[in-house]
Amino acid sequence: MRHPVRIARRSHGLSKGAVKVPCAVRDNGRVDTEELTFDAAGLIPAVVQQYDTREVLMVGWMNAEAVRRTAATGRSTFWSRSRQEYWVKGETSGHRQHVKQILVDCDADTLLVLVDQEGPACHTGTRSCFEHGEIEVKA
Amino acid sequence: MRHPVRIARRSHGLSKGAVKVPCAVRDNGRVDTEELTFDAAGLIPAVVQQYDTREVLMVGWMNAEAVRRTAATGRSTFWSRSRQEYWVKGETSGHRQHVKQILVDCDADTLLVLVDQEGPACHTGTRSCFEHGEIEVKA
Repeated sequence: MRHPVRIARRSHGLSKGAVKVPCAVRDNGRVDTEELTFDAAGLIPAVVQQYDTREVLMVGWMNAEAVRRTAATGRSTFWSRSRQEYWVKGETSGHRQHVKQILVDCDADTLLVLVDQEGPACHTGTRSCFEHGEIEVKA
Repeated sequence: MRHPVRIARRSHGLSKGAVKVPCAVRDNGRVDTEELTFDAAGLIPAVVQQYDTREVLMVGWMNAEAVRRTAATGRSTFWSRSRQEYWVKGETSGHRQHVKQILVDCDADTLLVLVDQEGPACHTGTRSCFEHGEIEVKA
């Protein structure tokens, strides 16, 4: 079964003096996943953020069907580039992501998925995947 | 001039019962950009987040040299996939990103760049690039 995915346009909140540039997202605010821009492999990056603390937890990749499943089930579903298969976050670990919102950027080539994360998001056991290394800023 | 980029390892803060999985980031905590995992086009996605409010502002792409320049200058530098050239965020618009921290995920294939953003981050004039559309979550 195909689940239509619709985009509801949000108010722009333009800064003073800013020019409103035509957006890849349709003006009627309703598009389906075919109107997202996927890369050559058919994928779009999905930044996953804890909805209340705003912590960035991880970045995963979705194809159109993974986007549809995520929207339809309310559980983050990704496409594994290494295993070439779908994976539902937390399906084996129990560390599920309860999806609150899926935002689309203006170029429609990146998603921001706001979730309520159960337990650690990272397979290493850390809350976020970004607790492992840091590149030193020299300036 | 080449600027060496070093990764300082952060404490893991493992959840109770979590298994520490070997990390792509070296245990001695010091690697250079060659140890990051770039995609087939030589790029790595960089999620840009406002350091204090934790708002996700945009996602850009960096090659190894863009990572080095970002770390060396403290200004976000990206590789434009459409124009095939470097661009320093804010160079023409004045909407600069002052880089506070560059975090690396465990797979070393994604960066999280914490910045202090001057003005809007999006070329459309909105503060964030994620104020344009939303996919409806049905669940």
